[in-house]
Amino acid sequence: MNKIVECVVNFSEGRNKEVIESITSPFRQRDGVKLLNVEADGDYHRVVVTVAGDPQAIKEVVVDSVEIATRLIDMNLHHGQHPRMGATDVVPFIPIRNMTMAECVSLAKEVGQMIAQRTQVPVFLYEAAATASHRENLADIRKGEYEGMAKKMTEERWKPDFGPDQPHPSAGVTAVGARMPLIAYNIDLATTDVSIANKIAKAIRHSSGGFRYIKAGGVEAKERGLVQVTMNITDYTKTPIYRVFEAVKMEAMRYGVAVCGSEIVGLVPMEAILESASYYLRFTNVDKEKILENNLEGLI
Amino acid sequence: MNKIVECVVNFSEGRNKEVIESITSPFRQRDGVKLLNVEADGDYHRVVVTVAGDPQAIKEVVVDSVEIATRLIDMNLHHGQHPRMGATDVVPFIPIRNMTMAECVSLAKEVGQMIAQRTQVPVFLYEAAATASHRENLADIRKGEYEGMAKKMTEERWKPDFGPDQPHPSAGVTAVGARMPLIAYNIDLATTDVSIANKIAKAIRHSSGGFRYIKAGGVEAKERGLVQVTMNITDYTKTPIYRVFEAVKMEAMRYGVAVCGSEIVGLVPMEAILESASYYLRFTNVDKEKILENNLEGLI
Repeated sequence: MNKIVECVVNFSEGRNKEVIESITSPFRQRDGVKLLNVEADGDYHRVVVTVAGDPQAIKEVVVDSVEIATRLIDMNLHHGQHPRMGATDVVPFIPIRNMTMAECVSLAKEVGQMIAQRTQVPVFLYEAAATASHRENLADIRKGEYEGMAKKMTEERWKPDFGPDQPHPSAGVTAVGARMPLIAYNIDLATTDVSIANKIAKAIRHSSGGFRYIKAGGVEAKERGLVQVTMNITDYTKTPIYRVFEAVKMEAMRYGVAVCGSEIVGLVPMEAILESASYYLRFTNVDKEKILENNLEGLI
Repeated sequence: MNKIVECVVNFSEGRNKEVIESITSPFRQRDGVKLLNVEADGDYHRVVVTVAGDPQAIKEVVVDSVEIATRLIDMNLHHGQHPRMGATDVVPFIPIRNMTMAECVSLAKEVGQMIAQRTQVPVFLYEAAATASHRENLADIRKGEYEGMAKKMTEERWKPDFGPDQPHPSAGVTAVGARMPLIAYNIDLATTDVSIANKIAKAIRHSSGGFRYIKAGGVEAKERGLVQVTMNITDYTKTPIYRVFEAVKMEAMRYGVAVCGSEIVGLVPMEAILESASYYLRFTNVDKEKILENNLEGLI
């Protein structure tokens, strides 16, 4: 059985299609690598690129792609709704098939070192790959964002794991890590008042008393004329989608605001969708084995 | 790309594990054939067996399995909640991959002829394989059930397509057909009054004014101390699961009865689950391509 690793790279460009095309081109041309999803958002000014495949092949194309992003994105000109600190903002490796977390950590360290060598962008290792506990949480590393990094990095505890002690003059810094699959999930609120999204985010996220596996913030989605509660569900088996959706609905009611949609950024494991369908339809006997497509392995 | 056909055989035995094991044994031993699901129900006294694979291989093992069922099941001793007319009640072929409906019809005709020759059980072709319009609908063929077949088959219009003009003395008759994928779906009502399930079934099914793609009836699930609305959703892209679930909930309210669960019999296509999750979670951007597992083809 072959090994498959997934990598979900966030680049700070969500508007210029040619730039996105260039950055993702290394993922289109390599045997053993499959480009699964490219999701650009103009308001967030960010593209989320999901690739999967053979670990050795993935390693090389990810570094190629980061090199292109370093050349093409100038963070001094970047303004978007989503917090960010670098042209290549974050590079997590996720075990999908016949991979251990330890193997993903090794891969993250190799890739981090290669990025620093080839681009002179400083790299912080995070989550399972972190080299100190205060650097496990991506939000802590990213705090201060691109504009605050030069000052932050003068502190001893914010020296990078690889590369120079100061941010790259146009590409900032990059976090490379290893983690379990997460779901990037946004809920739309039918209002333009971002303070309501912020208050709801505060109610549901772990850091301020909410669900154990939710990170959340409020953002404006100006193109669409609404605001969003933007979330990472870091363990969907323990904080399922439907539960956080219903909690957001309940909190939104307090402000007389409707929940008018929700979206997944990147990809979602089938079990997370099934778990939510099972809640609403009150399924008593439906698990992954009952999904037709899950049973065709060996025949196709 | 190889051809894959699915076959969902219904046998009239839901209680005796050894008999079910014998009947399904031909599906376990053949290259190119995969036994996807075996679902026995004691109240219904029926087992639904889902297999898929190469059409030529499937053809042979299905006939082998029907031969065993003919030997082991005596319909004279059969009493269950679900309408039935034969030891092997119904054998539909469903196109899954690189198969046309016309190919499934040919396969149904071949298999029907082989069953009649090898077991002396009369065979009716139904749905896309039917040879007359009054024999397209399975429920019309099955009307009168096992006990009424001898009399029914004296009529010219109920002469079988293959085999003798009278039911087999212990195995009754069998319907063999070709159809699109359907979802066998049951909704649990927290009552033992089957008349309520019957009234709700009547409200939602096509034949009495309900949804275009719903066939439904009421049954008792005595083992579980409740009743069910038992359904076939014959086109889930046009009558989705959530819509019929919500309609049943709404009708049940009229009798002060709670909907306490629902179940899928056999397998369900991923898109049907996703469509229901999308309704409840108000997804704005989630389609089949966003499911991680759907994107790994070529890598695994």
